[in-house]
Amino acid sequence: MMDRMSLTTAFTASLGLRHPIALAPMGGSAGGALAAAVSNGGGLGLVGGARGDRDWLERELALVSGQTTDPWGIGFWAWAVDAETIAWALEYEPAALMLSFGDPAPFAPLVRDAGVKLIVQVTDLDEARRALDAGADVIVAQGGEAGGHGGSRATLPFVPAVVDLVSPTPVLAAGGIADGRGLAAALALGGAGALLGTRFQTSLEALVPPEVTKALLDGRGENTERSRVLDIARGAPWPERYTARTLRNEFLDRWKDREGELAQDTAVQQAYRAAAARGDLDVVPVWAGEALDLITSVGSAAEIVADLAAEAERALASAGNG
Amino acid sequence: MMDRMSLTTAFTASLGLRHPIALAPMGGSAGGALAAAVSNGGGLGLVGGARGDRDWLERELALVSGQTTDPWGIGFWAWAVDAETIAWALEYEPAALMLSFGDPAPFAPLVRDAGVKLIVQVTDLDEARRALDAGADVIVAQGGEAGGHGGSRATLPFVPAVVDLVSPTPVLAAGGIADGRGLAAALALGGAGALLGTRFQTSLEALVPPEVTKALLDGRGENTERSRVLDIARGAPWPERYTARTLRNEFLDRWKDREGELAQDTAVQQAYRAAAARGDLDVVPVWAGEALDLITSVGSAAEIVADLAAEAERALASAGNG
Repeated sequence: MMDRMSLTTAFTASLGLRHPIALAPMGGSAGGALAAAVSNGGGLGLVGGARGDRDWLERELALVSGQTTDPWGIGFWAWAVDAETIAWALEYEPAALMLSFGDPAPFAPLVRDAGVKLIVQVTDLDEARRALDAGADVIVAQGGEAGGHGGSRATLPFVPAVVDLVSPTPVLAAGGIADGRGLAAALALGGAGALLGTRFQTSLEALVPPEVTKALLDGRGENTERSRVLDIARGAPWPERYTARTLRNEFLDRWKDREGELAQDTAVQQAYRAAAARGDLDVVPVWAGEALDLITSVGSAAEIVADLAAEAERALASAGNG
Repeated sequence: MMDRMSLTTAFTASLGLRHPIALAPMGGSAGGALAAAVSNGGGLGLVGGARGDRDWLERELALVSGQTTDPWGIGFWAWAVDAETIAWALEYEPAALMLSFGDPAPFAPLVRDAGVKLIVQVTDLDEARRALDAGADVIVAQGGEAGGHGGSRATLPFVPAVVDLVSPTPVLAAGGIADGRGLAAALALGGAGALLGTRFQTSLEALVPPEVTKALLDGRGENTERSRVLDIARGAPWPERYTARTLRNEFLDRWKDREGELAQDTAVQQAYRAAAARGDLDVVPVWAGEALDLITSVGSAAEIVADLAAEAERALASAGNG
């Protein structure tokens, strides 16, 4: 069979990347060291800016800009961030800025005027239309298989539907991808690459406690579940439409389908927060995607990027050549 | 780029097919004419034997065996069929017999002793293990994106997990696949092909009333939903774990999350059955998968098979060659 030299797409061309792979900007765990390692490995590292904690970001953005000369970026939650924080972050000269979970329109001109690529993550076709209207350079079509917050569409049918809607804007697939076969599938679906979270949660550079890494390695896709229960218990004001996929735990099992009751019960919420502050894994959210079955070892992020690309090339070359 | 002559896999080799494509044996709509058309097109047509209605099957099996000399098969629901019906169906000399939704073990020896390939559809890893133990020749890994009955795993992360578990037994991907990009993704994931339902519901040969075809063409993935509500209303004794994905309708919206109450309300159930008997689309199940966004036209089943294969070859050749 033909040997490919590398996987090239409109996404790698647009950002100047060696591999069509992006790090999901996971709040808290995708710090500067992880983002730099992914970028140094040839993908696009994205720091998890979340709602925009300046102290955390100052430290992590200094790290990423000090540790790589390759393109890197920052991600924020559109429902929670403000324009001032985005303007401030743009001064660090990221190659890309990503907005997820909310309306990108108010922030899009700031990003484009800075000459920075705008990446917008979407969870349904209506959001995809609005990302296009906002002038996104890259659109991430995220399926509900993803760990952490997201929607309810599934990646495999959702990605080509978004591609058909926004073409020729490049689309990255997210949700349920943890190995090179998933990356190959993303490209076969017409995507320009893949954005991975859980796979990098188990990298050496992720800001994740060892007991969480162990829980992820031991976990299986069928042990994960989408729910609002933990956000309600934590008092995290996420928009209702974005539920979170985590490992199941005792607290989730107890309050499943009783969200309304939980929201009224301040005593339970207080007890939850005390247990969560202790890091009790029976209650805290362990963000985890459904592709957990495919993650069996810890590795450095740069190695993970290289393995993903090499395995995807092999998967595409052998697909239908059996 | 390289031209592929065709897509060959362990599945096409095992059954002697031209394309790695199977028709989902949809109860009621996958009759003999549709199965024969898929087989004549180079895929594997499977008649929807469901629980095993002999009158319906006699007519449809006469049709399929009269209309094709290519390999074809029959599918049954394992929870509902009996051994006598399977033995009877095997006398029609299908190339393959498929068992879905339940334990295949009681019927597997009958199928294998007849020299017929045993295909087993699974919805989680535990079922995949049991299919392997039962001696399945082909395992279908069905994601919850599928139309009609199924489980809750998503196709993209589920297929490679099943492949890792059962290799070298060939695995077909099902759920969320309606075009050549989806077939290409199935192969990239390590699958040996794809099994499609909804795409063939909108073929000319499907036993589907015109108003249902129109509803499918007008429908979108986000208008579909998995639920037990319609099975409860119909009094269909499906095992609880297998919910059904259908187009949303007024009845579903009204009874969502009130399954227990509905099960008690015999007056509502009677009214439902009267409306369903009239074919009222506000209440009857219109089985539909989440890949509905990708289905925009009606065609003959043989053309659909040819288009799927050609588009998949193009998708694999252009993936990562952007």
